Amino acid sequence: MMDEEREQRLALEGRAQFSSVEREAVYRAIFERRDVRRNFLPMPIADEVLARLLNAAHHAGSVGFMQPWDFVVVRGAETKRAVKRLFQHTNEAASRRYKKPRAELYRSLKLEGIEESTINLCVTCTRQRGGPHVLGRSTVRDTDLYSTCCAIQNLWLAARAEGIGVGWVSILNHAALKRVLGIPKPVKVLAYLCLGYVSEFAVRPDLETAGWRARLPVRELVHYETWGNRL
Amino acid sequence: MMDEEREQRLALEGRAQFSSVEREAVYRAIFERRDVRRNFLPMPIADEVLARLLNAAHHAGSVGFMQPWDFVVVRGAETKRAVKRLFQHTNEAASRRYKKPRAELYRSLKLEGIEESTINLCVTCTRQRGGPHVLGRSTVRDTDLYSTCCAIQNLWLAARAEGIGVGWVSILNHAALKRVLGIPKPVKVLAYLCLGYVSEFAVRPDLETAGWRARLPVRELVHYETWGNRL
Repeated sequence: MMDEEREQRLALEGRAQFSSVEREAVYRAIFERRDVRRNFLPMPIADEVLARLLNAAHHAGSVGFMQPWDFVVVRGAETKRAVKRLFQHTNEAASRRYKKPRAELYRSLKLEGIEESTINLCVTCTRQRGGPHVLGRSTVRDTDLYSTCCAIQNLWLAARAEGIGVGWVSILNHAALKRVLGIPKPVKVLAYLCLGYVSEFAVRPDLETAGWRARLPVRELVHYETWGNRL
Repeated sequence: MMDEEREQRLALEGRAQFSSVEREAVYRAIFERRDVRRNFLPMPIADEVLARLLNAAHHAGSVGFMQPWDFVVVRGAETKRAVKRLFQHTNEAASRRYKKPRAELYRSLKLEGIEESTINLCVTCTRQRGGPHVLGRSTVRDTDLYSTCCAIQNLWLAARAEGIGVGWVSILNHAALKRVLGIPKPVKVLAYLCLGYVSEFAVRPDLETAGWRARLPVRELVHYETWGNRL
């Protein structure tokens, strides 16, 4: 190693550096995070734990520091039941898109844990927040949505570190969901999440285990300098 | 604490549980992650470190296990210069949207580190991957974009744990960027990221420090059961 490089490495030993234990913990959260739809424990999530998760979400970066997200915390059985009915309606239609034997496999999958999870969380994006000229958003308008997704991933990883499973229910009509939760028309729903403690996390994604799809080799997804130029 | 609750807590001591050190490390990555645009060190990012970051991104959840992302790794000075020119062109137009004194503040901000960072990384979303009926995507078509953003956040946090700063350049014309990188028309650009080692991470977001916008109190963003119902 050249002297200059060694010097730079030494500079990294300061504030920027994570210990190897800390670094491995971050990777552990990333690799052990799962989309959880089953085996939720009925143990409640304490208010201070929920506050930590929401604060983690709130500390995502956002375009122009817009912080466009809001969180609707749902605990009531009646609200969950109403959302579950929305899921069932949409999922019935979705299942009709597949032919046998794929249709049978589809119907066997557990795709939500709305009523089994202790907390449901609707994450929204208020697109008008920050006024008409949000810094960095003039070219790519949807960067506010992207920021909100980054917030969701923060929450998902923090939840994993807390032993809390999170499942993202994407099979929902968002217009109908907004009526159930009283969300104003201009506010966009990004995600409906189901949160609850679990005693373990699956080693692999459910859809991989069920044989729905395989994980792609990451090297096939990496290009060098220009698209299609692979190592 | 009731017996049942105690039993459930004990069950958590198993595979699902992070130690308090591990949990704090995950929160540390979340709270110390920054959008970095300056003070990159010229020290190269080793191939195995880059591989870890890309693998972290690849382990985000994705709708229907679609894994719609690709990564274009840019190291060449010429390519970076071409992208920098795209930024300058778009940023000049963006700066004209503000009136004094906001315009002056805008022009004083450092909004990208394209040429100073050792690696640029373009993250894309291939919307056709997985065929016409991707599980969970029939209602909300953009869930593939959301998945890709989750992958970006994984990479961002892993990079923080590696001592690598990441800056998201959103002030770019994506159509022009695709021409520079040879990205096919149907593939969507999600993000253009600048990666490099830094000797420290700012305590607060740059835009907060510069007085562009303040952090919102998180309690104002949390609603209970229905929108607008705050504690």
